Amino acid sequence: MILDIINKKRLGEELTKEELDTFFSSYLKKKVKDYQMSSLLMAICINGMSEKEVFDLCDIFIKSGEVLDFSDIEGIKVDKHSTGGVGDKTTMVIAPIVASLGVPVVKMSGRGLGYTGGTIDKLESIPGFRTDLSDSQLKEEVRKIGMAITSQTSNLTPMDKAIYSLRDVSGTVESIPLIATSIMSKKIASGADKILIDIKLGCGALIKTKKDALRLSSLMIKIGKKYNKEVRTIITDMDNPLGRSIGNAIEVKEAMDVLLNREKGTFRNLCVEIASIMVSMGKNISMEEAKRKVNNSINNGLAFNKFLEFVAYQKGNIQKLKISDKTVDVISTKNGVVKRIDALNFGKLSVKLGAGRKNKSDRINPQVGIRLNKLVGDKVKEGDVLCTIYVDKILNYDYVEDFYSIS
Amino acid sequence: MILDIINKKRLGEELTKEELDTFFSSYLKKKVKDYQMSSLLMAICINGMSEKEVFDLCDIFIKSGEVLDFSDIEGIKVDKHSTGGVGDKTTMVIAPIVASLGVPVVKMSGRGLGYTGGTIDKLESIPGFRTDLSDSQLKEEVRKIGMAITSQTSNLTPMDKAIYSLRDVSGTVESIPLIATSIMSKKIASGADKILIDIKLGCGALIKTKKDALRLSSLMIKIGKKYNKEVRTIITDMDNPLGRSIGNAIEVKEAMDVLLNREKGTFRNLCVEIASIMVSMGKNISMEEAKRKVNNSINNGLAFNKFLEFVAYQKGNIQKLKISDKTVDVISTKNGVVKRIDALNFGKLSVKLGAGRKNKSDRINPQVGIRLNKLVGDKVKEGDVLCTIYVDKILNYDYVEDFYSIS
Repeated sequence: MILDIINKKRLGEELTKEELDTFFSSYLKKKVKDYQMSSLLMAICINGMSEKEVFDLCDIFIKSGEVLDFSDIEGIKVDKHSTGGVGDKTTMVIAPIVASLGVPVVKMSGRGLGYTGGTIDKLESIPGFRTDLSDSQLKEEVRKIGMAITSQTSNLTPMDKAIYSLRDVSGTVESIPLIATSIMSKKIASGADKILIDIKLGCGALIKTKKDALRLSSLMIKIGKKYNKEVRTIITDMDNPLGRSIGNAIEVKEAMDVLLNREKGTFRNLCVEIASIMVSMGKNISMEEAKRKVNNSINNGLAFNKFLEFVAYQKGNIQKLKISDKTVDVISTKNGVVKRIDALNFGKLSVKLGAGRKNKSDRINPQVGIRLNKLVGDKVKEGDVLCTIYVDKILNYDYVEDFYSIS
Repeated sequence: MILDIINKKRLGEELTKEELDTFFSSYLKKKVKDYQMSSLLMAICINGMSEKEVFDLCDIFIKSGEVLDFSDIEGIKVDKHSTGGVGDKTTMVIAPIVASLGVPVVKMSGRGLGYTGGTIDKLESIPGFRTDLSDSQLKEEVRKIGMAITSQTSNLTPMDKAIYSLRDVSGTVESIPLIATSIMSKKIASGADKILIDIKLGCGALIKTKKDALRLSSLMIKIGKKYNKEVRTIITDMDNPLGRSIGNAIEVKEAMDVLLNREKGTFRNLCVEIASIMVSMGKNISMEEAKRKVNNSINNGLAFNKFLEFVAYQKGNIQKLKISDKTVDVISTKNGVVKRIDALNFGKLSVKLGAGRKNKSDRINPQVGIRLNKLVGDKVKEGDVLCTIYVDKILNYDYVEDFYSIS
C-alpha cells in the first residue's frame, strides 16, 4: 500500500485524500520510514501536486495538531509570515506599529536554522525576555496591550514539523506545493482571521523566480479561501540582506532605530508597506489611509512606545541589551558604487560568528553580528569601512570584502 | 555538497562521475543517509540518467567490490541473466545443455525474495547440495565438468547490494537506468566473456512495456561494449508463469523432465532458444547450427547426464529429492479455454505456502509448491484439475481457481 502510493506519485498521478492521509499519518506513527517519505517528497518536488492534493494535504497537516482559537479577542487578528531571509527583523518593527493602531497582533515565531535567523532568537537577546507564553498568557497580553510574540507551541501542526526537518536534509525543500502547505497549515492552525504573506524572492531566498513566487502566491490565497481566511501576499526582493544589520541584539537595535525614525531607506519602506497592508486588512480601510496612519504612528512615537510596552510585558530589560565591543572593520580596497551585497554569504558568516545555528541543539551568541555601513547604491572610496563585524574572537575577515560587488 | 547533488538531479541535470562517486561511496560509508539516497534514486527514476551517467555509475558499482577473473579457464565463458519471474527454472535447464556442448558455464545465482524464486533456493532443495563454493572450488569444478553454480559471494558489487535493498522498500525499483546498472555491474564483475540477458516482459514482471524492454536492451548492450563484452538480449513473455511448476523441489523435478525430453511446450522452447544463443556466442557458430546441437544434446541424454554430474559434484543426492505428499487439487467450475494464468498471484501463493520468503531471514520449505495441470491454450471442462497444490498444511484453496482466466 505504502509503495503503491509512492509509485502512483512517481508516475505523476493524483493521490486521493485517503492515500495522502494514510501515508503522512503512518509517517508520524513511524510506520512509514524516513527513506520512504523522502522518496515520496522527491516525487512531489518533480511531478508536482494538483490543487486538490495541496488542499487535502494542508487539511491533514492542520488536523495533525491543535488549532488555536482567538475569537474571544476583539478585533480582526491579522497574522504575517515571511518566507525567510537574511537580516529579516520585520516582525519586531511591524507588530508594534500595527498594534499601536488598534489591530491585535498574535504572533507565533520560530527560531533560526541555517543562515536565516529567527525572531524568537532575536527577542531573546534582550536580557530577561520570555518567549514561552502559555495560551492564556498570550491571550491576556493581547487583550491588555494589543500584541504578543511567542515561540511556536509544540502542539501546532506536528506533521509539518516532522516533514520540514526531513525536507531540509533530503533536498526536497524547493517545491511550491510543499512550501504552500507548510506555511498555510501553520498560519491557519495559529488562529488568525486574516493573513499577509511576504514572499521573499531572489538568490538568497527559497523562491528564485518571479513565476514561482506568483504560483506560490496564488496557491496560498486559494488555500486561505477554503478556510474563509483572507490572504494577501507581497513579493519582495531578497538578493541583498534586509536592512543594515545581521545578528540578534544588533537586529533588535536596528528595529528600534526604525521605530525611532532614525533609519530611512529600503528596509523602513518595506516595514511601512507590510504594516500598512496589515492595518488595511485589520481595519477594512484603504491602503492610502492605512499608510498615513502607519507613518503617523512612527512619527509621533506611538509605535516605539508600544515596542517598549511589549518588551517590558514579556519581562525584557531593554536597557541591558548588549552588542559585542570587539569589532573588526572591513575596509574597501576599491572605488565605485555598491551593486550587490551577497545575502547568502553574509547569512553564512553570521552563523560562523555564532549568531545562528548549524544544528538544532547549537546555542547562539546574542552579542555578535554584522552591521553594513555601505548599502546597495552607496558610493565607496578606497579605505572606506564597508561593514563592521561584531565578534567574540578577533580573526581575519578580509575575505568579507568580496561579499560586496563594487563597480 | 550532498544536497547540491540531489538538487542537481531534481532539476534534471547531468551528474559528473565525481559527483556520482562522492554520493554513492559516501552512502556505503554511511555518510549519506538512507533518506538522502532514496530521494536521489526517486529523482533518477523520474528524471532519468544520460548514457554517460549510466556508464559512470555502472563503473562505480563494479569497482565497489571484487571483479572475478576466469581467463585461466579455457573457452569463451557465457553468462546468462534473467530479469526475474515466477517459476523461472531456466538456469537449471540451460546450464547443463550449454556445458554438455563444451561451452563453460560459471554461474553466480541469487536467492529468492518476494514472489520470484531464486535458483540457489531451488538447488538447495536437493538434499546435500552445496552452493557456497570458494573461487578456487568454482574454477576447479568448471575445469573438470564444464559448469558450476554458486551463490553470489559477498565481495561482488557490494554497492549494488546496498542500493538494491533500499530501492526495494522505497518505491524506486522501476527505473531503466538503475535496472541496467544493477544487472550489468553484477554480470561484468562476475567475469564472463559474453553475456545473454533474458528480459522478462509482462504484468508479472518488472518491465511492463515493449518500449522499456527495448530501451533496457539497448542500454545493456552499450554498457557491455565499454568492457569489451558482447551482450545479447532476448525479450520473453512474463504474463504467465514459466513452465508447469512453482516452488523449489518441484521446479528441480520439472527441469529434469525437460532435460529428459518429457516436457514439450513454451518453457522447453524458451530453454532451447536461450541455450542456443549461448552456444552460438560461446562457439561463434550460427543460431541454426547451435540449435541443432542443443536439440541433439537433449535428445541423446548428454544434457541430462551433465545435470546429474553437476549435482553429484556439488554433493547433492538427487535420489532424495522430495515433494510434499499432502496435496490439494483445484477443480474447474467452468468449461472453456485457458486464456491467461496470473503469474503474480501464483507467485504470491507460493510465498504463502512457504516456498518463498517475505523477509530476508525467512526459511523456506523446499517441498511445497504448485503444479499447473492446465496451461494457456488448454481446453478445460467442469470438474477438471486446473492445478495441484503441494502443501504443508491442508487449507481451502478454492479461490485459486480465479487465477485462471477461462473463456
